[in-house]
Amino acid sequence: MWTALTTIALFSIPLMGTALAEPVTAEAAKAAADQAASQADTAFMLISAALVLLMTPGLAFFYGGFVRSRNVLNTMMMSFILMGIVGTSWILWGYSLSFAPGTPFIGGLQWLFLNGVGLETTGYLAGSQPDAVVSYAGTIPHQTFMIYQAMFAIITPALISGAIVERISFKAYFWFIVLWSGILYPIFAHMVWAKGGFLGLYGGLGALDFAGGTVVHISSGVSALVAAWVLGPRKTYPNQPAAPHNVPYILLGAGLLWFGWFGFNGGSALASGSLATVAFVATTTSASAAGLVWVILEWILRGKPTAVGIATGAVAGLVGITPAAGFVTPIAALLIGAITATACFFAVSLKAKLQFDDSLDTFPVHGVGGTIGAILTGIFATKAVNSAGADGLLAGNATQVLTQIEAVAITYVLAALGTIVILKVLSAVFGGLRVHPDAEFQGVDIHEHGEEGYGEEVTAGFMMTRVE
Amino acid sequence: MWTALTTIALFSIPLMGTALAEPVTAEAAKAAADQAASQADTAFMLISAALVLLMTPGLAFFYGGFVRSRNVLNTMMMSFILMGIVGTSWILWGYSLSFAPGTPFIGGLQWLFLNGVGLETTGYLAGSQPDAVVSYAGTIPHQTFMIYQAMFAIITPALISGAIVERISFKAYFWFIVLWSGILYPIFAHMVWAKGGFLGLYGGLGALDFAGGTVVHISSGVSALVAAWVLGPRKTYPNQPAAPHNVPYILLGAGLLWFGWFGFNGGSALASGSLATVAFVATTTSASAAGLVWVILEWILRGKPTAVGIATGAVAGLVGITPAAGFVTPIAALLIGAITATACFFAVSLKAKLQFDDSLDTFPVHGVGGTIGAILTGIFATKAVNSAGADGLLAGNATQVLTQIEAVAITYVLAALGTIVILKVLSAVFGGLRVHPDAEFQGVDIHEHGEEGYGEEVTAGFMMTRVE
Amino acid sequence: MWTALTTIALFSIPLMGTALAEPVTAEAAKAAADQAASQADTAFMLISAALVLLMTPGLAFFYGGFVRSRNVLNTMMMSFILMGIVGTSWILWGYSLSFAPGTPFIGGLQWLFLNGVGLETTGYLAGSQPDAVVSYAGTIPHQTFMIYQAMFAIITPALISGAIVERISFKAYFWFIVLWSGILYPIFAHMVWAKGGFLGLYGGLGALDFAGGTVVHISSGVSALVAAWVLGPRKTYPNQPAAPHNVPYILLGAGLLWFGWFGFNGGSALASGSLATVAFVATTTSASAAGLVWVILEWILRGKPTAVGIATGAVAGLVGITPAAGFVTPIAALLIGAITATACFFAVSLKAKLQFDDSLDTFPVHGVGGTIGAILTGIFATKAVNSAGADGLLAGNATQVLTQIEAVAITYVLAALGTIVILKVLSAVFGGLRVHPDAEFQGVDIHEHGEEGYGEEVTAGFMMTRVE
Repeated sequence: MWTALTTIALFSIPLMGTALAEPVTAEAAKAAADQAASQADTAFMLISAALVLLMTPGLAFFYGGFVRSRNVLNTMMMSFILMGIVGTSWILWGYSLSFAPGTPFIGGLQWLFLNGVGLETTGYLAGSQPDAVVSYAGTIPHQTFMIYQAMFAIITPALISGAIVERISFKAYFWFIVLWSGILYPIFAHMVWAKGGFLGLYGGLGALDFAGGTVVHISSGVSALVAAWVLGPRKTYPNQPAAPHNVPYILLGAGLLWFGWFGFNGGSALASGSLATVAFVATTTSASAAGLVWVILEWILRGKPTAVGIATGAVAGLVGITPAAGFVTPIAALLIGAITATACFFAVSLKAKLQFDDSLDTFPVHGVGGTIGAILTGIFATKAVNSAGADGLLAGNATQVLTQIEAVAITYVLAALGTIVILKVLSAVFGGLRVHPDAEFQGVDIHEHGEEGYGEEVTAGFMMTRVE
Repeated sequence: MWTALTTIALFSIPLMGTALAEPVTAEAAKAAADQAASQADTAFMLISAALVLLMTPGLAFFYGGFVRSRNVLNTMMMSFILMGIVGTSWILWGYSLSFAPGTPFIGGLQWLFLNGVGLETTGYLAGSQPDAVVSYAGTIPHQTFMIYQAMFAIITPALISGAIVERISFKAYFWFIVLWSGILYPIFAHMVWAKGGFLGLYGGLGALDFAGGTVVHISSGVSALVAAWVLGPRKTYPNQPAAPHNVPYILLGAGLLWFGWFGFNGGSALASGSLATVAFVATTTSASAAGLVWVILEWILRGKPTAVGIATGAVAGLVGITPAAGFVTPIAALLIGAITATACFFAVSLKAKLQFDDSLDTFPVHGVGGTIGAILTGIFATKAVNSAGADGLLAGNATQVLTQIEAVAITYVLAALGTIVILKVLSAVFGGLRVHPDAEFQGVDIHEHGEEGYGEEVTAGFMMTRVE
Repeated sequence: MWTALTTIALFSIPLMGTALAEPVTAEAAKAAADQAASQADTAFMLISAALVLLMTPGLAFFYGGFVRSRNVLNTMMMSFILMGIVGTSWILWGYSLSFAPGTPFIGGLQWLFLNGVGLETTGYLAGSQPDAVVSYAGTIPHQTFMIYQAMFAIITPALISGAIVERISFKAYFWFIVLWSGILYPIFAHMVWAKGGFLGLYGGLGALDFAGGTVVHISSGVSALVAAWVLGPRKTYPNQPAAPHNVPYILLGAGLLWFGWFGFNGGSALASGSLATVAFVATTTSASAAGLVWVILEWILRGKPTAVGIATGAVAGLVGITPAAGFVTPIAALLIGAITATACFFAVSLKAKLQFDDSLDTFPVHGVGGTIGAILTGIFATKAVNSAGADGLLAGNATQVLTQIEAVAITYVLAALGTIVILKVLSAVFGGLRVHPDAEFQGVDIHEHGEEGYGEEVTAGFMMTRVE
């Protein structure tokens, strides 16, 4: 800390009024103002990155509350391990594959090991040739942008885990997400957000995706669906009751996710100010409307509003607004939340009826929610809110809906294919992807990790009498 | 996200040194500096809004830990449902009724559906006629102010729930808070904080309330007292033991509330800088002193310091400093915390002796704490800290104390009357406000929501043997 | 709040375009730009302070999850009570003893009760005489710096508690931390970070400690080791099983610690911008690498990766990067995380083999991690990252490693001596430091606090049958 003080000391002595002989020029004042703006934006983006990081523990609790207590640690580790794997691989190769200038499908290798990714705030050089040193950071240091994006790369694969908990072996999961996050995610991020990405702005399709409807939610939701299908259902499904072992954890998780989502969507403006405010307002409004609508649907159709319902509804609303957050009015956000919640509500019901074992409804919430949100973005987007965006159907541009659908379809195909390939390869290498059959009945925690969530109960021999 | 990149791209190309032919004027430099300041303030206010949002899940855990496990979800939903209801109604009509220019008692309808509430940072036009377009946002976008205020409107009614948990039906509670948050809260907010409010700055009484001593804590505390009286005590009170089912949840809730309160009080400066620092320092100092004093009082008077005590004391200190945070020195904050904690400590004891069933001490903490804090504000406030405030008793202005008491008294009357009217109407419409008598013994969660907090224990038939 | 509005109103009327007759000078524009930069930095530092405050509840859950349920509240209170004690004493005398100009070992008394600690942003006057009014705040208000430092003083002594839980009496602990935090901590902070401190920048040894490797982690880790040795082992150790009663709490604590650590390390830049970004990136990268390495070591050496392992590993990585965060590249941070995790992993194993009862591994994680981190800082530091820092071994300056080792050694000696003196005095005064022997078997919570973490289980008489 004290070395920081040195800088301040040197810098601030003039502020004391002792020196400062030469007159201030307008250029110097303007440069100081630009520097101040950069500091404001950097502060906002660093805090936003911290908020997005917190979403992964939040997700661990959201998912962990749903499962049985004998599987709680395995489920939570499926989120936490991403903080280890991607936090490391993003520095080594993930950021380069995602954002370095490269092909329309994937980035180059120039920024491997963060080579050339420094602290400069040079701005994105739109017209530059592929090999030029290029930064996505307009007013913030390049590394600030890099670490903000790291947090997205961490949480996205963690979302998939919800569909496959309580049966996939930790070894298989570990290598699955190493490959998914290390190869597949960079493709999704690059094609939509990177310079030269084929779905993105620079010569791409022109699909709108403010904070990750396709890159984050559809990609993970579809992968979850496919992974659940490849793995097959839990042996205890649907015959054994699987009530959430701790609903307060689900609520804690939902609360932390909502809180962190302000960084996720608000920070996607990449700067503090009006656009960040637009995204912030849209985010919380959609979540509120979605949570409320879900509870009312339950109340009317099933007789009782539930805590699991308001948590799930809020998350659905947050998913739905993600692609739209920086392009729509508050009232449109309210409608997007309400519509997405309704769609996800019936998707969850349908999944239950079909007895498809996507354990924690990852596809019905993230896949369906992301899809509905991406399409509604094409309907509600308006340049009146964000002149750098595009008009949607209601603003007279019907083709944007088609563009959105096209981007959604491409993401579906890529996610499904990528996930199948990875899982088939791993299955062949490991001779299977699942835990030992006994573990599904006795507890994945003790089999895979040699520990239990709540140690004392087991010591006293409760577990066996308690669980089925 | 990439559309945000467009703006940056266009904006930052000049930064690359390729263009930028015309000279910088001092006016342009000053405008850039003002813009940078706005971005800094907006960043601070958006993060503050996020922090205040997190207080509602925090409150859910604070209250949820206190109740029996069979009522934990109902208690937590009484907080979470506000995030759905008010997050929606605030956009539709709540903000307009609260802050649009109108009568001295309530705002107008001009800003319904956020009509006219945009992203401009035009400042509050103090002398404007009622119909003029007016913004509370000095340096931040109007919508930033609007969404920050939304978070206050969400948590305030949630505070009431503490007094009436474990007996009110969810249907009655739902409609109670729809009406309380939709009609009553706008009155409290408008009369103190809005242009033309009769207790506020512009031609009003001149009471000091920095972050909501009257608007948030007295209003909810008194409403809680009245609601507990209208509903009557729990059937299990005071005969059955009601030890908190999970004290760590209470501590988690207290921790999240303390953390979020930095946004609540610090953000009430509406800008980053010195005043925000004053409020931040006062907030944490008061909470520390109050937690410490509560524990010491327990230790001396009852023999043992408790975890529930330090959590309750800290919250009392946070309540007490809320009206004063931007007007007092750190030492005054320390005293306010100590005095408020002492007052609330004895109020809680008195409530227990009177056997009045305000289940989780909402009135003794928020009502009494808010009242003591509002009066102490009139004693400790000083223009030396905030020149835009007022001097209190110790700075030679004894009448400020009377002004504070007057504002407190008016809030008591309005909150009590409003709550009685709403509850009597609802009771008549619904034929009662309480859950089925069996539910109070068997668990509100299963009766009202059809779910349980800890599913497995019930499956195994523990619940019946475990609880009383 | 409305008084804040006054300021804004007065300030913003000119913005409406009604007044503003006189021309803008370049000086005025520059002053406005400096003010905007100050607001950005203040926003960043206040949010950072809030994040560091949240680490203490985070630590309560991290430690609380490890102990038996009958001791959970005592363990959590050992963290929360610091928020009461130090939050108060820091205002009264702690800040003055730590940072006021004084001797090389401890600060003066000029700033007692925050006398002279105001809202000015005058900058650190490096060459001033000891008695001059001096501020550490370059661009932020002095009180902002003061309250940010308060949060460090709160969490540091709380770290010690991990070594002595489940046996120290609360009275002994209370007075131990009053003395440790009130006298010993100011010495550590002063000697490294304060003007004139003998290990610090101004005429000091020149050891690098960006965010508290020595001041926070070695000081608390060594004190923990000594305290565990003075107290002796738990009566239940090592014969009774002591599985963590709630591993999800450990994960929640680790998540909150990681989140808060962004404020701890990032905020130690004392301003928003490039240096904060450097520290932020290093922090999360080291934590990721450390968590991953720990899990892999477990997997290879013990057969199974654990949730406790990833949580402990991440914390070790956060400890290790703390002294280095503002001086190293992302790749160096990755290596520091990996090396620290490896060292702490084997230190934890060794401690278990030696059957030394540092209950929750405070020394192996914070002591060893802080030591390794401090030394690695001397190896990986480079002026290419932070010109105000120093070069380390790999940048050609081998002597920096020796300087680091010297600073580490001095901290070891001071922490050990200070802790022994305090504990011996208290032991003499109180006639012992431990709880009643029965309490170690029956539960410290009920004996020391008269309450229990999970009330219902006890009511039903589970406790006795459940625990051993």
